[in-house]
Amino acid sequence: MKPPHEPLKKLVGHPVSAIDTPALVLDLDAMQRNLGRMAEFARKHEVRWRPHAKMHKSAAIARLQMQAGACGVCVQKTAEAEILAAGGVHDIYISNQVVAPAKLARVAALAHLLAAERGQLAIAVDSGEGVTGLAQAMNAARASGATPAVIAVFVEIDVGQGRCGVAPGAIAVALAHEVRRHAALRLAGLQAYHGKAQHLRSARERREAIAGVVRDVQATRALMEAQGLKVECVTGAGTGTLVCEAASGAFNELQAGSFLFMDADYAANERDPAQPNFEHALFVKSQVMSVAADHAVCDAGHKSHAIDSGMPRVHLPEGAPRLALTYHNGGDEHGILRAAEPGGPLPRLGDTVWLIPGHCDPTVNLHDFMVGVRGGLAHGQVDRIVRVDARGAAS
Amino acid sequence: MKPPHEPLKKLVGHPVSAIDTPALVLDLDAMQRNLGRMAEFARKHEVRWRPHAKMHKSAAIARLQMQAGACGVCVQKTAEAEILAAGGVHDIYISNQVVAPAKLARVAALAHLLAAERGQLAIAVDSGEGVTGLAQAMNAARASGATPAVIAVFVEIDVGQGRCGVAPGAIAVALAHEVRRHAALRLAGLQAYHGKAQHLRSARERREAIAGVVRDVQATRALMEAQGLKVECVTGAGTGTLVCEAASGAFNELQAGSFLFMDADYAANERDPAQPNFEHALFVKSQVMSVAADHAVCDAGHKSHAIDSGMPRVHLPEGAPRLALTYHNGGDEHGILRAAEPGGPLPRLGDTVWLIPGHCDPTVNLHDFMVGVRGGLAHGQVDRIVRVDARGAAS
Repeated sequence: MKPPHEPLKKLVGHPVSAIDTPALVLDLDAMQRNLGRMAEFARKHEVRWRPHAKMHKSAAIARLQMQAGACGVCVQKTAEAEILAAGGVHDIYISNQVVAPAKLARVAALAHLLAAERGQLAIAVDSGEGVTGLAQAMNAARASGATPAVIAVFVEIDVGQGRCGVAPGAIAVALAHEVRRHAALRLAGLQAYHGKAQHLRSARERREAIAGVVRDVQATRALMEAQGLKVECVTGAGTGTLVCEAASGAFNELQAGSFLFMDADYAANERDPAQPNFEHALFVKSQVMSVAADHAVCDAGHKSHAIDSGMPRVHLPEGAPRLALTYHNGGDEHGILRAAEPGGPLPRLGDTVWLIPGHCDPTVNLHDFMVGVRGGLAHGQVDRIVRVDARGAAS
Repeated sequence: MKPPHEPLKKLVGHPVSAIDTPALVLDLDAMQRNLGRMAEFARKHEVRWRPHAKMHKSAAIARLQMQAGACGVCVQKTAEAEILAAGGVHDIYISNQVVAPAKLARVAALAHLLAAERGQLAIAVDSGEGVTGLAQAMNAARASGATPAVIAVFVEIDVGQGRCGVAPGAIAVALAHEVRRHAALRLAGLQAYHGKAQHLRSARERREAIAGVVRDVQATRALMEAQGLKVECVTGAGTGTLVCEAASGAFNELQAGSFLFMDADYAANERDPAQPNFEHALFVKSQVMSVAADHAVCDAGHKSHAIDSGMPRVHLPEGAPRLALTYHNGGDEHGILRAAEPGGPLPRLGDTVWLIPGHCDPTVNLHDFMVGVRGGLAHGQVDRIVRVDARGAAS
């Protein structure tokens, strides 16, 4: 017997109704509109955009973003960088720390490989050991005969996330000096991402949080420049706050990734009036497989969509029946659907149910493929199969 | 460049310290002991065991379970059944509803294929439409020239889970009669699984919940037998309650799956004295990649382990430093580690951190491979790479 994933390609050209469930479906028209909105937003604010590919993990989508004007992509993991590079993406920033010698050797090898392709690799650091290990790996890669290369290094400062990064100010400046000591490293600037601020619900709270980020960035930058350290680039921002970083003048590069697909969690934020009106482009197509008196059960549970940021929302595409339903956790393989109003109508056995995932990044990471459709979810057709190239690539 | 997953095989024979992070690590010694405990428990209670392969999704492990005495395996999805069958597992029960005609055609094809291998396929139903659709698919498969086959059918009753299943009693009996109407379907008995009861923390609550399940099962069975319907098998139970179902005399088959790997959530249950002392066998190996004043950050976030049943617990293998740490959500790719006692020591940059996942099933589903080790986590070595054959197989 053949593995059941392969036949997806034969769906191309068929109506959306032919897609077996559960399946991750990408509305390519909506994605393209989001891409255009982001490109226009970045142009207007004269800021570069380097979307986070940890969200889609697809080389094809990364290339599409760069064709639309993105200067490159971010990733979180060495393996993601390797896989996207193999897929033709040649300007990659690992916006994260790497300290294991075996991984640093891979990072150095990739930096040399991308240099040979006239691309470039960048990485973040937040420790002296990390800087030393990276320099050793770069020197070893060079000594072993690879094309000479320099890796761009961003000093990560903790601007409120409480995760990685050194304190803004003097400690960050000291680390920047350490980077400068190594010929194979090029000090590229500051990494300043406030992850928690992305999900503050009110636009005012998000603006206040990013105002603090901007103060930290400006103070650190001033101190660096006073000591002769050039800050080429300050990079950060997510889909929740990008309007703040873009308007601040303190950021050169936006890392937002989720804008492309949007998810239920970002849609639950109060929209900042300055924010482009990104629309949902990522859905789980599901089917009702059981109906009881007070609920129905669909075939998509949390092995099909991530629930770390809450349950998916039931989506009613144009042309579909207007049933108001809420989704409740039914475990790994099931979703419980209830009428939004007690006593309201439930779907019938076999009906299609569309879900907007709570969080797009870990949802995509559950799937090997996304089914790309055009012409809408109700009456459109399958245009292409998008491979999630770096699915599960966590090392 | 090669994809970074392939070189895992070269780890075999190397020490555990050589495993790159994050990685899903299986303690094969502990797993083997759990397997022996389950086999002995089932023998003692004179009950069959058909462990749920939705947990491990691996044909090699399913075969190992059957060699240890399991009568077959359960799965939740048609694609899981197809993949395990291709991996040499020939007695499979889809303990779930399937209603889509395209999937029912696959179910019927698989039933015929397993019959040709002298194996068998079984499935659950909870609707008349499901029964009719299944019979049509079986007839179509037979008409198309496949070896004659019959599929075993369990009527699922809702015994408190509030998900799939018809009400116990008359409605279930009526559905059993419908199954009997079709020559290609063999009425096999009742599916009676109470998922919610698995995670009730006190042993007393679990016993009470399963006492209710047993009453429902016995009443339905009596009604069926009074109407001449033979109940060959009552199947159900999970790792949390299996002692109750086994002792009840009402169940012929136990479906528990998690006992083999155990997870932090099941370990948080008060242990019933009658329950075998299953130990943790599944771990995420992780590395500290950043250290701040009050926390450290490891490289495993919820793309490496599922958090639907809570955060992972930090595990201290024998021979490892005795640091008391708690794990906090750091997002998709990061974990935040804090000292269990305020001011307590933190791990150092580069240190290994072992995590016990909150929930094993969806954690395994995040990984393409498990690294099987023998001789302990601290000083053992890699014995084999176990492929998660049905990873992502959700259709």
